[in-house]
Amino acid sequence: MTAPNRNTLWATAIIDELVAAGVTAVVISPGSRSTPLTMAAARDDDLHVFSALDERSGAFFALGRARRTGRVTPLICTSGTAAANYHPAVMEADNARVPMLALTADRPPELRDSGANQTADQEKLYGDAVRLYKDLPEPAANDRALRSVRTTVARALVAAEGVEPGPVHLNVPFSKPLEPTPVEGDVPTDLDPFAAHGRDGAYVEAVRGMTEPAGDDIRTLAGALSADRGLIVAGPADPPGLDPEAVVALAHATGYPILADPLSNLRYGGHVRVAPVIGAYDAYLSAAAASHPSWADPEVVLRLGASPTSKRLRKYLAATGADEYVVDPAGRWREAEFAATDLVVVEPNRLCQRLAGVVNRSADSAWRERWIEADRVARAVHSGDDVEHLDSGMAPDGVHEGDILRVVVDALPDPATLFVSNSMPVRDLDRFAPPSTTSVTALGNRGVSGIDGIVSSALGAGSATTDDLTLVLGDLALYHDSNGLLAIDRCGVDATVVVINNDGGGIFHKLPIESFEPAFTAQFKTPHGIEFEPLADLHGLTYECVDLRPIETRDPAVERVATAFREAQEAAGSRLLEVQIDARTSHRIRERLRDVVEESVHGAVLTETER
Amino acid sequence: MTAPNRNTLWATAIIDELVAAGVTAVVISPGSRSTPLTMAAARDDDLHVFSALDERSGAFFALGRARRTGRVTPLICTSGTAAANYHPAVMEADNARVPMLALTADRPPELRDSGANQTADQEKLYGDAVRLYKDLPEPAANDRALRSVRTTVARALVAAEGVEPGPVHLNVPFSKPLEPTPVEGDVPTDLDPFAAHGRDGAYVEAVRGMTEPAGDDIRTLAGALSADRGLIVAGPADPPGLDPEAVVALAHATGYPILADPLSNLRYGGHVRVAPVIGAYDAYLSAAAASHPSWADPEVVLRLGASPTSKRLRKYLAATGADEYVVDPAGRWREAEFAATDLVVVEPNRLCQRLAGVVNRSADSAWRERWIEADRVARAVHSGDDVEHLDSGMAPDGVHEGDILRVVVDALPDPATLFVSNSMPVRDLDRFAPPSTTSVTALGNRGVSGIDGIVSSALGAGSATTDDLTLVLGDLALYHDSNGLLAIDRCGVDATVVVINNDGGGIFHKLPIESFEPAFTAQFKTPHGIEFEPLADLHGLTYECVDLRPIETRDPAVERVATAFREAQEAAGSRLLEVQIDARTSHRIRERLRDVVEESVHGAVLTETER
Repeated sequence: MTAPNRNTLWATAIIDELVAAGVTAVVISPGSRSTPLTMAAARDDDLHVFSALDERSGAFFALGRARRTGRVTPLICTSGTAAANYHPAVMEADNARVPMLALTADRPPELRDSGANQTADQEKLYGDAVRLYKDLPEPAANDRALRSVRTTVARALVAAEGVEPGPVHLNVPFSKPLEPTPVEGDVPTDLDPFAAHGRDGAYVEAVRGMTEPAGDDIRTLAGALSADRGLIVAGPADPPGLDPEAVVALAHATGYPILADPLSNLRYGGHVRVAPVIGAYDAYLSAAAASHPSWADPEVVLRLGASPTSKRLRKYLAATGADEYVVDPAGRWREAEFAATDLVVVEPNRLCQRLAGVVNRSADSAWRERWIEADRVARAVHSGDDVEHLDSGMAPDGVHEGDILRVVVDALPDPATLFVSNSMPVRDLDRFAPPSTTSVTALGNRGVSGIDGIVSSALGAGSATTDDLTLVLGDLALYHDSNGLLAIDRCGVDATVVVINNDGGGIFHKLPIESFEPAFTAQFKTPHGIEFEPLADLHGLTYECVDLRPIETRDPAVERVATAFREAQEAAGSRLLEVQIDARTSHRIRERLRDVVEESVHGAVLTETER
Repeated sequence: MTAPNRNTLWATAIIDELVAAGVTAVVISPGSRSTPLTMAAARDDDLHVFSALDERSGAFFALGRARRTGRVTPLICTSGTAAANYHPAVMEADNARVPMLALTADRPPELRDSGANQTADQEKLYGDAVRLYKDLPEPAANDRALRSVRTTVARALVAAEGVEPGPVHLNVPFSKPLEPTPVEGDVPTDLDPFAAHGRDGAYVEAVRGMTEPAGDDIRTLAGALSADRGLIVAGPADPPGLDPEAVVALAHATGYPILADPLSNLRYGGHVRVAPVIGAYDAYLSAAAASHPSWADPEVVLRLGASPTSKRLRKYLAATGADEYVVDPAGRWREAEFAATDLVVVEPNRLCQRLAGVVNRSADSAWRERWIEADRVARAVHSGDDVEHLDSGMAPDGVHEGDILRVVVDALPDPATLFVSNSMPVRDLDRFAPPSTTSVTALGNRGVSGIDGIVSSALGAGSATTDDLTLVLGDLALYHDSNGLLAIDRCGVDATVVVINNDGGGIFHKLPIESFEPAFTAQFKTPHGIEFEPLADLHGLTYECVDLRPIETRDPAVERVATAFREAQEAAGSRLLEVQIDARTSHRIRERLRDVVEESVHGAVLTETER
């Protein structure tokens, strides 16, 4: 079938090449200039089209999907501010290494800078945040141009999903007619069939290798990892994620514990049964611990993934004098304490596999056991199950925000996808949700750690899996991306949304600014009084509220949250569970609990003479 | 009083210079890295602080305020995606020449590209969209650095409010401590008092001249404007707007009619009593009219402001063979039909004043009267008041979306500020809301004509005036910036919001894509079924709904809308008036009405022999 005009031919070539390269879904926002791309996508039976009315939410939806799958979900939008609305998600994709492809329609070159309507400068719109930018030529129905555009699409995908995945931007100008209306003579009948219709499969393909360590380097690294006291630290994983089997094999070979960030893909899953996965370190590590000669002074640290969520862990690592190896396949030193000593530019799963085969196990098992015991003690204090190390007068009995994360994770079905927001939920997940054998894929936006786009990112992740999806976020994050809730209906994603409503920016209670009133309340805490039941109404979510104000004693409060969460999960459709809590009190309890944990862990892992 | 630390000193210098330069308000979004700026602003008694939880909405709020006042309302945000959320409004400000100043906090230079949390590349974040970009040095408590930062702030404001107003971006890095906590020795006691505390008034000031025409040029232009048939075409005004007195003086001197865009600041106001202000041209002009030798063939056109909203006017101007003078003080040819013959780089109000003093009036009064008659006939058809030129069988009797704009403008109090959204409301305002003597300041975002940020832009404009504020927008625009409604409560702005709900993108019914189902409905029209009453609940607006589906006969329908609007205006607080209408039928009525108007105008202005 011949295309009715060159725009249709051109856009169909673009979409066909995306599909041939393995793309299965796109996110389209409505607009006129992008009509050729939209029509080509809508008419492709092999492509699932998600429709996003707000481009900002649409871009985060695509980001979340790519984070879950490791593959691009291309974005299509019209010209003008639509494209600028992608920018926050592009920035996150850049920093979090999430593949993304923005196809922004544009007016034809002669209208740029002419004062024409809806015509902005879209060239290099995202600056250095993209791996590749190309302003496509105007659609042309000739063999070379068509071969060129097919090749460009393939190259863009390879750049987006390369060794350092990230966003790419193709700016796509179109003149009228934008619709697939016949234009006589616009498409020659003697086009090279490969140029016009592509090949059987992708027009061009890339074989992508993997950075392997050289033999000498493996021996050197294996030597380093034969130290008595070592740690494997897994930060947030780059998509498509760290392979638990590979990392656990290395942990067994070395005898080192794995300090697993909640977003590392290593804290939750079946491997936790057999591997020394440590998860409560954020509760008890401190720079002081690092200098204690008998307990937490590692000689060597192998770091995988991005910079850990836990600031206490980062500060602790910087305070140890350990040799710190940062493993990064893209060759970046993602380590902002400037304490790491070595960069290892190798694919991390492959590195772990290789090292596991050659390391001579020599670790001090007492070292590993201390970490396991420290974690056990911290978890016992957090859960309230074990108070043997507590001075009962010291332990706070109120519920705090971390308890919500703890009980939610505890009640997750198996398997589950869990998305957590910045700023407090991911920190509370880190500290209070211990390793478990449930297969939880925990995700967050830790590239730039914004509180924007969280709802959409979560629903995008949910759209790519049959897992049960749970999103835990704060009231500001829910407000910020409330538009994202539209995807529940429009994109058919079910979720249980848990909003921890402390009426504003609870995290600021952690900071010294708390003592500067009235600016603290007006400009930082920013209480807003938003009621979330109408928002649930607006988007057709079942709504339930648990009010924990004033702060209740822990056990009954925790039980109420757990019950409400289980009921929400069993309800049909999507659910919004609001948990109201007072941020200030919660932070005070959190601080006291930290002191109790530190003291308990100290008491548990050190002998009397060591203290 | 000495500042407690260098960050406080530095941020206070920035804020002090803003205030000294005449800034009266800022828009702050909560965040940690921006703490020094936020604290300095919050502590300044001369500064009104608007708090915006969503930076995208906050930036559009500042944009709307600057559009209403012509002056910058600076923006303050934290590092990371927060800054990227400003991008859509920055793009609009660039293209619409609205002054804007984005102060984006940043992490200190040593943390950039280090993998540190919430640290993105903010350098030149908005690319070429800004008039000036500067990455400020790190705060330093020495005389030269302080003099430099005071000067930079002044220069940034001058750039933002210069001959081509627009956005400027200052990236402001801070290290800890961010709070005004004392740091001993951080601020020397022997600083130059001017560096430390500024001067009495601004630290530096700019005298800004105005581009005046040379004497010879005035004589040449006056000669051109002595042609018999001429037009003054006023497009959307750049802030701070066109001066009706100056333009009307020129209209009187030349005898030419003023074709006044609804956003030109010339269509509404007391001057309409005495000046030939034409406003219904979008209903009856066509390229065909331009070639009719007896009626609409101007010899000369003087264009003020940006490119007119009316596409029919633009096409008509291109089809006339007239000499077309584009007046642009910034020296840009804002004219995308490439038909204009001359660029006049002069401040437009000043040009009109000067020309009015020297033009030899020689215009053909019959020419002007024809335009006045054409407008009268079109208005009569639109309002249904006068059917003498109508074949009554042809005239559609159903209500359409344009009627809503017509009755809303008709019912506005005096004075009023009216904000209209893209895509259809501004076009319907253009075609159906005739010139009136009510002092209406009509505003829209026509720089890039996005449907994003409309609510916030309107409320920002409202925040700068004691006028009654009315916003008319479509359902997609209201959904897109529903977060902006928070400013009603948080920023204390009252508004009457009229949402014309046609359940999706009604404008696409105007385009050929309408005939391509199922893609048309799924990807262009995008019906969403959003109910707006819960949204009104969420933000505490009084809610009323007028359902015009199925399309009703005009008179009772129009009366219902008028009554509901008047009642909404009288209600306390802010109001959401939803008018539900069927877009497809509305467009069909609109099209038939256009045919009737064209025929009626043609019949009215031409004699039998001319036809």
